[in-house]
Amino acid sequence: MAELPDKAEHFIDWYLEAVEVAGLTDKRYPVKGMNVWTPYGFQARRQLDGLLIRGIEASGSRPVEFPTLIPQTEFQKEKEHVKGFDAQVYWVTKGGETDLDIPLVLRPTSETAMYPIFALWIRSHKDLPFNVYQIVNTFRYETKTTRPFFRIREIHFFEEHTCQLTDEAAAARCQENLATFQGIAEALALPYVASRRPDWDKFPGAYYSIALDLPVGGARTLQVGTIHHYRENFSRPYEIRYEDLAGELRYVHQTTFGLSERLLGATVAFHGDRKGVVFPSSIAPYQVVIVPIVSQNSGPISTDAARTLADRLRAAGVRVYVDDSEERPGAKYYLWESRGVPLRLEIGPREAAEGTVTAVNRLGQKQRIGPGKLEDGIRQALVEYDQALAAQARESFQKAFSVAHRLEELQDSTTVRIVSWCGNEACGHQIEQAIDGAVLGTPEGPLPIDPGSPAECIACGKREATRWVLAGRPL
Amino acid sequence: MAELPDKAEHFIDWYLEAVEVAGLTDKRYPVKGMNVWTPYGFQARRQLDGLLIRGIEASGSRPVEFPTLIPQTEFQKEKEHVKGFDAQVYWVTKGGETDLDIPLVLRPTSETAMYPIFALWIRSHKDLPFNVYQIVNTFRYETKTTRPFFRIREIHFFEEHTCQLTDEAAAARCQENLATFQGIAEALALPYVASRRPDWDKFPGAYYSIALDLPVGGARTLQVGTIHHYRENFSRPYEIRYEDLAGELRYVHQTTFGLSERLLGATVAFHGDRKGVVFPSSIAPYQVVIVPIVSQNSGPISTDAARTLADRLRAAGVRVYVDDSEERPGAKYYLWESRGVPLRLEIGPREAAEGTVTAVNRLGQKQRIGPGKLEDGIRQALVEYDQALAAQARESFQKAFSVAHRLEELQDSTTVRIVSWCGNEACGHQIEQAIDGAVLGTPEGPLPIDPGSPAECIACGKREATRWVLAGRPL
Repeated sequence: MAELPDKAEHFIDWYLEAVEVAGLTDKRYPVKGMNVWTPYGFQARRQLDGLLIRGIEASGSRPVEFPTLIPQTEFQKEKEHVKGFDAQVYWVTKGGETDLDIPLVLRPTSETAMYPIFALWIRSHKDLPFNVYQIVNTFRYETKTTRPFFRIREIHFFEEHTCQLTDEAAAARCQENLATFQGIAEALALPYVASRRPDWDKFPGAYYSIALDLPVGGARTLQVGTIHHYRENFSRPYEIRYEDLAGELRYVHQTTFGLSERLLGATVAFHGDRKGVVFPSSIAPYQVVIVPIVSQNSGPISTDAARTLADRLRAAGVRVYVDDSEERPGAKYYLWESRGVPLRLEIGPREAAEGTVTAVNRLGQKQRIGPGKLEDGIRQALVEYDQALAAQARESFQKAFSVAHRLEELQDSTTVRIVSWCGNEACGHQIEQAIDGAVLGTPEGPLPIDPGSPAECIACGKREATRWVLAGRPL
Repeated sequence: MAELPDKAEHFIDWYLEAVEVAGLTDKRYPVKGMNVWTPYGFQARRQLDGLLIRGIEASGSRPVEFPTLIPQTEFQKEKEHVKGFDAQVYWVTKGGETDLDIPLVLRPTSETAMYPIFALWIRSHKDLPFNVYQIVNTFRYETKTTRPFFRIREIHFFEEHTCQLTDEAAAARCQENLATFQGIAEALALPYVASRRPDWDKFPGAYYSIALDLPVGGARTLQVGTIHHYRENFSRPYEIRYEDLAGELRYVHQTTFGLSERLLGATVAFHGDRKGVVFPSSIAPYQVVIVPIVSQNSGPISTDAARTLADRLRAAGVRVYVDDSEERPGAKYYLWESRGVPLRLEIGPREAAEGTVTAVNRLGQKQRIGPGKLEDGIRQALVEYDQALAAQARESFQKAFSVAHRLEELQDSTTVRIVSWCGNEACGHQIEQAIDGAVLGTPEGPLPIDPGSPAECIACGKREATRWVLAGRPL
């Protein structure tokens, strides 16, 4: 029952232990980087998927599902794209005893699976905008060290693919995706920055890429999602065309929006503390755990009250668990704290008799609720918990960025850095070398802190055309 | 706009066209037997998955998700099992440019993925019963002709895996699964028979297999699910043991319960007619379609009323679509009938002014609803539609079986057959040859029709130990 490692000092060790003690995943599956979703972890994922589904469907996207396997011939149609993924794909070469005529790729992402079919579905300007998404697993033959949720070989993946009439409409869809993500991030109490990635770091085949990054301690950042504008880069090789009002055939302009189980990892990484995971109530597998306190002579009164309350909370739509195991109350508190449950309710014989509960939230705030209608008080306590979590997150987000004016300052960065840059690629690489990380890019919208007007380029010293960019150490 | 082929005479042609005109799937994906879930088909699947999830969780099962890929070494641990699947699995042999040391199988089912981990999770009798399920895609290198939802290469699959203390507890879990399936089948208005498969047709590695079959016209049957009792057949090679009360290590007794997208195919096959698909309202992508009837001088009154009503129905939890496209009303009726929508509401200027709608359900029953609270009347119309569909299904189910007393009668079977059998395997094969199909097995529970006491074996004529079995032609 020791505390976890210090998060700031030993982030990766802390993270691995936090995931482990919460029992979100089992890494002992005999293929490295392919992990098992435990019942507890799966419940968090299901809630997270629900957020994504509600968010994207509210923005006019419809669900589809394309096959997992992609023929080599289709996979190779867009040259940049295949170059970006070639070293990272799994190949299916045999069915039963038979060598396949055309090897199949386990999708690393679904552009090349979807676009031949989009070419059949889209005929006319009336078919546009065309917005579809799928939540599926994707596969990457990852050669670096794998980490649960962050870098794995089978990835729980969300991908929206859209076709638009024009370049401008595609850019507008990217902005709509940003708004959708904002809603998802708010539900998770996660602050983030959206940056337009430098050209050398965009998605293979993209015209531009907007990435969604979280600061996760020190200069470390975690990319939790991307929004890409493809222009006609895929619609030309895959011949996705529509007839416009004048009867002319035109190529569609495409966008994609990708998220993954990294969002779950990010939630763990951003909110967690030395006791373990801290879930916002939106995706907590259990929002409330009730611990009946049974004394020697009290009989079943506490346990009965706990079960009755649990039934009423379930009827009110709250996810609740009654821990009536034989463990000591202290051990239960420890367990459910490490697993990130937002609200613990303790019911002893006196509370049961009074019709009250003692509520302790995952941030340590304690209150007595009741007597009276307990459901309302408990829901209110969850709302207050989420607000406190969001306030705490905003505060640590503010501290996660600082301006650097000279390259030498970058080496010892203890925050993500904001630097002035001329846009020249060689200067960009100098910045990356100095921070031993990456230029994340130019933020879409305001910077997390206001550094005033951009100064001279931190690398070459030129004052022309400089802009603020973020630089950090992506995990 | 022609009718579909005659269902009784040309069942497969009818089925393929019904799926096609409803737009449930797209077969043009460049890997044969791997189909695309369209937005419309995906919505039906999502509702179906919801039925399975609610059903199985109500019976005490928890969701998990295991990896898609299984190392060859694990896959080969249970000898019968691997023999049953060896010719049917896809092999991943390369990652990037690298040949994998241990080839990976794309799961055809997940026993061999799960059980090494179950061996780590299960320690004590307190961990039992252990019931988990997952809904994932599985893969079979199918060499026969593929058919949407029926026989495909990437399968949307539901699988429950349980570990029990004893043989009896495992048998009891099989019965609980039967009860769960009963609830699912009722929601789909699908009658079925559950039969214990003959030994030569059980699942590779099973002690016994109970299959869930639907009659789908003539002697044809469609297996839509299976429940298996494994005894210790897997727990021994995978060493899944628990410590009993006396401190002894014992092997768990296992069961599985499998369903798939075949249930969607079965719904199409069983209820469909010459106009196309007929959905029960439980899984209909849209339960209601509203067609505003716009006359030249009526202005937007019908369309406005349609949209207002749609909003109110959505708020009441009804899945509804307003078809305000420029097509003629007749074309819209035809379209939504072929797509199986339970209830069509027509709103013309007069209905809009009166606050009424004309409702026509997919079985052709027409009524005026309103004025007054339309939501209640529409929900009631859906309930009545589902009842009528179930009654119609029961009626055709009754006609789908008949008794045969002589082997020669089997050849020209126009129903699934009930025959008396001595239990001898050689006699079983004679029956199978005579009907050009399979012995489905002994029903669990009563036969669909009552044939009295079993007579002499239809094959060898012996009277001892005979029992009624079903014989048909599995699709």
